[in-house]
Amino acid sequence: MIKVGIIGSTGYAGSELVRLLMGHKEAEIKWFGSRSFVDKKYASVYQNFFEIVDDKCMDDNMQALAEQVDVIFTATPQGLCASLVNDEILSKVKIIDLSADFRLKDVNVYEEWYKLEHKSPQYLEEAVYGLCEINREDVKKARLVANPGCYTTCSILTCYPLVKEGLINPDTLIIDAKSGTSGAGRGAKVDNLFCEVNESMKAYGVASHRHTPEIEEQLGYACGKEIKLNFTPHLVPMNRGILVTAYASLTKEVTYEEVKAIYDKYYKEEKFVRVLEKDNCPQTRWVKGSNYVDVNFKIDPRTNRIIMMGAIDNLVKGAAGQAVQNMNLMFGLKESEGLELVPMFP
Amino acid sequence: MIKVGIIGSTGYAGSELVRLLMGHKEAEIKWFGSRSFVDKKYASVYQNFFEIVDDKCMDDNMQALAEQVDVIFTATPQGLCASLVNDEILSKVKIIDLSADFRLKDVNVYEEWYKLEHKSPQYLEEAVYGLCEINREDVKKARLVANPGCYTTCSILTCYPLVKEGLINPDTLIIDAKSGTSGAGRGAKVDNLFCEVNESMKAYGVASHRHTPEIEEQLGYACGKEIKLNFTPHLVPMNRGILVTAYASLTKEVTYEEVKAIYDKYYKEEKFVRVLEKDNCPQTRWVKGSNYVDVNFKIDPRTNRIIMMGAIDNLVKGAAGQAVQNMNLMFGLKESEGLELVPMFP
Amino acid sequence: MIKVGIIGSTGYAGSELVRLLMGHKEAEIKWFGSRSFVDKKYASVYQNFFEIVDDKCMDDNMQALAEQVDVIFTATPQGLCASLVNDEILSKVKIIDLSADFRLKDVNVYEEWYKLEHKSPQYLEEAVYGLCEINREDVKKARLVANPGCYTTCSILTCYPLVKEGLINPDTLIIDAKSGTSGAGRGAKVDNLFCEVNESMKAYGVASHRHTPEIEEQLGYACGKEIKLNFTPHLVPMNRGILVTAYASLTKEVTYEEVKAIYDKYYKEEKFVRVLEKDNCPQTRWVKGSNYVDVNFKIDPRTNRIIMMGAIDNLVKGAAGQAVQNMNLMFGLKESEGLELVPMFP
Amino acid sequence: MIKVGIIGSTGYAGSELVRLLMGHKEAEIKWFGSRSFVDKKYASVYQNFFEIVDDKCMDDNMQALAEQVDVIFTATPQGLCASLVNDEILSKVKIIDLSADFRLKDVNVYEEWYKLEHKSPQYLEEAVYGLCEINREDVKKARLVANPGCYTTCSILTCYPLVKEGLINPDTLIIDAKSGTSGAGRGAKVDNLFCEVNESMKAYGVASHRHTPEIEEQLGYACGKEIKLNFTPHLVPMNRGILVTAYASLTKEVTYEEVKAIYDKYYKEEKFVRVLEKDNCPQTRWVKGSNYVDVNFKIDPRTNRIIMMGAIDNLVKGAAGQAVQNMNLMFGLKESEGLELVPMFP
Repeated sequence: MIKVGIIGSTGYAGSELVRLLMGHKEAEIKWFGSRSFVDKKYASVYQNFFEIVDDKCMDDNMQALAEQVDVIFTATPQGLCASLVNDEILSKVKIIDLSADFRLKDVNVYEEWYKLEHKSPQYLEEAVYGLCEINREDVKKARLVANPGCYTTCSILTCYPLVKEGLINPDTLIIDAKSGTSGAGRGAKVDNLFCEVNESMKAYGVASHRHTPEIEEQLGYACGKEIKLNFTPHLVPMNRGILVTAYASLTKEVTYEEVKAIYDKYYKEEKFVRVLEKDNCPQTRWVKGSNYVDVNFKIDPRTNRIIMMGAIDNLVKGAAGQAVQNMNLMFGLKESEGLELVPMFP
Repeated sequence: MIKVGIIGSTGYAGSELVRLLMGHKEAEIKWFGSRSFVDKKYASVYQNFFEIVDDKCMDDNMQALAEQVDVIFTATPQGLCASLVNDEILSKVKIIDLSADFRLKDVNVYEEWYKLEHKSPQYLEEAVYGLCEINREDVKKARLVANPGCYTTCSILTCYPLVKEGLINPDTLIIDAKSGTSGAGRGAKVDNLFCEVNESMKAYGVASHRHTPEIEEQLGYACGKEIKLNFTPHLVPMNRGILVTAYASLTKEVTYEEVKAIYDKYYKEEKFVRVLEKDNCPQTRWVKGSNYVDVNFKIDPRTNRIIMMGAIDNLVKGAAGQAVQNMNLMFGLKESEGLELVPMFP
Repeated sequence: MIKVGIIGSTGYAGSELVRLLMGHKEAEIKWFGSRSFVDKKYASVYQNFFEIVDDKCMDDNMQALAEQVDVIFTATPQGLCASLVNDEILSKVKIIDLSADFRLKDVNVYEEWYKLEHKSPQYLEEAVYGLCEINREDVKKARLVANPGCYTTCSILTCYPLVKEGLINPDTLIIDAKSGTSGAGRGAKVDNLFCEVNESMKAYGVASHRHTPEIEEQLGYACGKEIKLNFTPHLVPMNRGILVTAYASLTKEVTYEEVKAIYDKYYKEEKFVRVLEKDNCPQTRWVKGSNYVDVNFKIDPRTNRIIMMGAIDNLVKGAAGQAVQNMNLMFGLKESEGLELVPMFP
Repeated sequence: MIKVGIIGSTGYAGSELVRLLMGHKEAEIKWFGSRSFVDKKYASVYQNFFEIVDDKCMDDNMQALAEQVDVIFTATPQGLCASLVNDEILSKVKIIDLSADFRLKDVNVYEEWYKLEHKSPQYLEEAVYGLCEINREDVKKARLVANPGCYTTCSILTCYPLVKEGLINPDTLIIDAKSGTSGAGRGAKVDNLFCEVNESMKAYGVASHRHTPEIEEQLGYACGKEIKLNFTPHLVPMNRGILVTAYASLTKEVTYEEVKAIYDKYYKEEKFVRVLEKDNCPQTRWVKGSNYVDVNFKIDPRTNRIIMMGAIDNLVKGAAGQAVQNMNLMFGLKESEGLELVPMFP
């Protein structure tokens, strides 16, 4: 039984991690960290866990935690994990960081986009970018995994095969993403009140959202060169779900079957990526509560572009689910353990 | 491995049954019945099941089905199960009927409220009302179970202990219930369109809803006499969830502790009923996707009334979850098998 | 042209007041009070007013304001209006208070339910309870009007005719009310975040909500005796709207026509109260954005009770619209001036 | 007083037309056409109009209607207006067609995208494309106006100034649009049920939506050449609102101020187009219920692209409001008569 500690267990991603680990046969949560709720019962913060979780919230002591558990998940704001981690800790436990601290290899890019000094740049080299479908083998050997961002996961997996195979010109890539409101976290802000979000839609972080360099870096690896793309996130009046609509120019004339074959080449064996049938557009309702990524595409011969689409549950494949998938890989467990969740509809 | 057949698998309750049974270790669906979609792939009707369910939809042939499975769930409109069932079928398979056909013992009451001739009144006597927490022992021995209605389940479990113990005057009972829209089914009706339901709330079936006699009959058994009560359902702009607010006059002066003790007497050992802590009102968000019933109460000394509250997921404890719970009891399995679902929030 | 000052113009009720007064031919807003946003452009707080309102927010100086305007609306938390008002001010301007400060005649009841010392009990006697349909003549002569609460308006108007005519036993009255989330205000609280409210429903303030004594007092006047009733508010995942479902025992056998005649007696001439046609249940969608109150009822001969239903837009008839209606009466204008708004659907 | 007839008054756009015209001082509805509800009271189909509209629904007899009114609005499916209109009718009344019948000048393009034979191509030349801000003078003289589509209105007005001034390369234009569900109409379809739309988001009509050629034609006029662009509509779980996010490559280096000056050149004098302040992204909540178009832009120097954004209420500026604006122009009334609606929030 793997012993798990969570730092930041009372955010939405943290609580989803708890939900998923409750159904995991080989893992057991030993530490429900939450600076804001120390000594309060976890189930009083999230009452869905009433009579399921009896523990109280603990503080953020990563040092103490490292003595007691096999793996630490940090579901905390940027900067915290980098400020706590050190050699001794890394020698004792594996760390899966759900924040952005170890996602970007270049510390300057991190500091520019996050407006934050990086406290542990020495681990950037070692940290593995935990997008399981792409970096599976590296994840297996990692002791520090940077769990990808929610928008990033959906964006990359939607475009990856075509970028990798050179079928699209990466410099023409435009990613228009739409997210449910849980992506904004549980902080009490007027902008996230029910009446402000409901019955409305908006873009935000236009040409400046922090997931942009993360997508650029990873897709850059795929095509072997630096790329710059447009990424625009939008807020949607729903709890969960990310939908990505991505546009790019084709580098040559292709048929539906040819493109489908490329997607299948990368994803046919992937349990959690479903390449939909022709003309079925991904919808967030079909993946809600699950670790699936639904992808599809449409060729537009009129403009010589291809429209790629992807849908995930931002809290599962976009956060907690992927983190568990990484844990499974790191500990040699079945990759889908605890994640065989049928999407819940309606 | 129990072989399962579902008649009416493409309604919302039917599809929830599929979702739950996919996670059930001792059951396997052999027949996805759906008159409207015969020969269509089940996963094309509910795309959450893409790459999870490969089967095609079958017709309603209960006779043929009885040869192939151990238990049949009928998640169909009223009248269908009663028109198909017969001695031969009942000798071969167990039946769990999610419609109202076998819920009311008095055929006249059924025919009056449902405006329908009952085709198999001869089985009314035998059929067991499948509210597991109350009729557990009878369910275990049953071959025909009438799965309770969604409003009914929530209403009865919310009020049962106090009615049973004579703490409230059942003739003063008023049940004001609120339901998510999945309770209205997947039929294409203008009244259930997004724009008609969203941003609105209404009562319907006032003083005439068909779950009324069902609640009256069951609570009547609890207090040992016929009762008449008011039940008013309301439509709420959300997918899932039923909230019941029930009012009744107290028969004597009581303290919080005394009433709490009564609830605990009936529910402390019940896995799926959670009596909340003092002053925590049940909320549908804390039970969504799970088989839990959250209940609580508040004494109002000013009016000498008690307000009882309960929340369920109408598709789980109010339909498919309870049906699986009944199946588990009927086949001697662990009662919670396939139902140990943590509520999904947000 | 009536000059208007608003204290608390940046709450939801305050901003609705601005919306309504923009369309009022005889009134002009001179002062957009908002302690939290002093010197900020009003349209930057509510961007729907961009290029419509150019003014900046002002502070809460009622003294200064009294020199400049004819009427002051206070759309502020309880206690503020009572702490600012004085004889000099009242000699110069009329005041319409949207808070609860002057709604209850008995200062003890106020202090008990609101846990607040009342700073100006000397005006309680004079203040007129501004439920226009019931106190029209008194409002016309008032200089201080207590604008009724949102739940209260809907509850009282729904039940008033039958209480007044003695058709129901007021001691059996149970009011189950459901409100959109704008009723909770624009404060940044976790409980009112989109993800917490969406896809959920709950009761709150059970047996303790502050609108209870307000309803009791007013309906007590109607039947000429003190009454105690149950009032339970619920939070609904929608922006606007209150739905009231009220239950009471009939004092005698009545027909639909007799009850309808009583409702018509009180409301036939009332522009803003619509007694719906038989069996049409009020729905909040049909009154959204308007000053209408839709009411109807259903007799239940089985239980000898009557179910009364009412729907309003909580921000219009439940707050700003009623405040404007009061202003119109106080200044001798056409009662519906600025309020002839067709409900917006969908 | 202008006499108005509406054919198709019981769709969502038709009912919004009724709402707007109820507040129009110089127009009066004489004919509530609705094939599906002939002889039913209009207010029984849309109960927001109870005690406001007393009329019954009439059939689609354009011939009869032409004798009685000054202007006919057709808010009907494609094909109907073209099949009814003739010289005699056009000699008697003005027609504002909310369908697509007269929007595209090239009958072949119409027939290809709409899969429909055009019954009156002889009027295509004469028909004026009623995008008031662009074709104002032509609209004033028109007797047949093609009211633009909802997506089209928002897309064109968002991009028009930059296309017209040659600041962007129109061949790089990608329009990603998001719409509330009222755009899908009031037809009873499973896909538009509350539970199917709520908590989900999807693209549809990818690379094939019928508003594409309409946008291409109009923006083609602006830049003086034929263009092909990508347009992708998405369904959002909200009642009203369209948000457009458009991407294009800049033809030269520009500053914020230069682009702002171009937007102002076209829109400063336009009452219904609001160019927002720097960094304020358009949000549908700020235009709901009104005829406003909110637009803004963001330059991305990293990719040399510009992101243009626009928001409208699809039922007002995207349908009924624009139709009324066209009527006002055609009859020499104040252009904003009946349309001075403050957006309703929340």
